[in-house]
Parts: sequence; C-alpha cells; structure tokens
Amino acid sequence: MSKLTIVANIHADPSQIDLVKAELEKLVPLTRAEEGCICYDLHRDNEDPAHFMFFEIWETRALWQTHMQAPHIAAYAQATDGAVVDFRLNEMTNIS
Amino acid sequence: MSKLTIVANIHADPSQIDLVKAELEKLVPLTRAEEGCICYDLHRDNEDPAHFMFFEIWETRALWQTHMQAPHIAAYAQATDGAVVDFRLNEMTNIS
Repeated sequence: MSKLTIVANIHADPSQIDLVKAELEKLVPLTRAEEGCICYDLHRDNEDPAHFMFFEIWETRALWQTHMQAPHIAAYAQATDGAVVDFRLNEMTNIS
Repeated sequence: MSKLTIVANIHADPSQIDLVKAELEKLVPLTRAEEGCICYDLHRDNEDPAHFMFFEIWETRALWQTHMQAPHIAAYAQATDGAVVDFRLNEMTNIS
C-alpha cells in the first residue's frame, strides 16, 4: 500500500503568530517519535510569516489517523483555539 | 544559507486531467537532473484527481530560478496552456 502524504496549511491570526509557531514547534519531536511517521517537517512561508505548513509522510493512513487522536494534537488545538484563522489539510499520494 | 522549499499546487481543468498529468510527469526526471535540485516530488490529491502538487527542495533560490527558466518548463507551459485552471506557488523555509 502506498504511503500517505499530508500537506497541512496553517494561517495564524497576525496578532498570534508567535503563539501558533511555538505550539506547532512543540508537535515536531513528539510526532516524529510516533509509529509510522516517516517525515514531519514544519515550514514557514517566506512571504507571509503567519503562514505555516507541515509536510508529512506516513506509512499508512491508519497510523496517521492514530496520530490525529494523539494527546499532543488535542493540546495543540486547545492552546491555539481562536489563534488560527485558516487550516487546510490535503491527503495526497506521491506519484513520481 | 538555508535551502528553499517550493510547494506548487496545480489544478487541472477537469476535462484535461490526463494531459496535465502527463506533462507534469515529464518534468520530474528532467528537473531532478538539474543543479541544486534536492527533492522534486509530484503528488496527487487523494480526494481530487484534478489537483496536483510539487514538493520541491532546492539548494538555493538562485538555482531554483534558473530551473524556472529551463526549456522544459517553457515547453510544459506551452503544452498545458488553457488546461490549468489554478496555479499557486509558495516559497517556504523548513523551520523544524
């Protein structure tokens, strides 16, 4: 079964950029330690400091869904409640 | 100097998906052979067959810009003229 690529785009409220960035950064080591996590890289838009993006690769969709139920994801959602103005997530497959 | 990450989202006209996919696929080996190209992976949205995404990593912005002037990019643009309904590109930096 092919791996799952996730691209998650997070747009912080311009007044809450530092908070969102700090909370996103907390997720990196915790998520990289999870089963099935092949890649979990946080990026920032060079032209928009409020725009962050996670590029993720997971062994299976099931293991990614387990990740989405992890306590640190819930803690992130609570800590950034009201501080994120747009969140879009795409499930993709590498075809090259 | 930190590397450059490019995320390019390409939405094909629903009636031209196969053409756009074929032209995007042609770019992969040619671009991977270019100086400074670290990663150049084509993805497809699992929920929208018309939505493609290139995840790219380049040694420098300058080398990426050289790529954007390459003949195969010009040929792609010509071949897909009118067949792409939306194209967005973000220049990003890996901060994790």
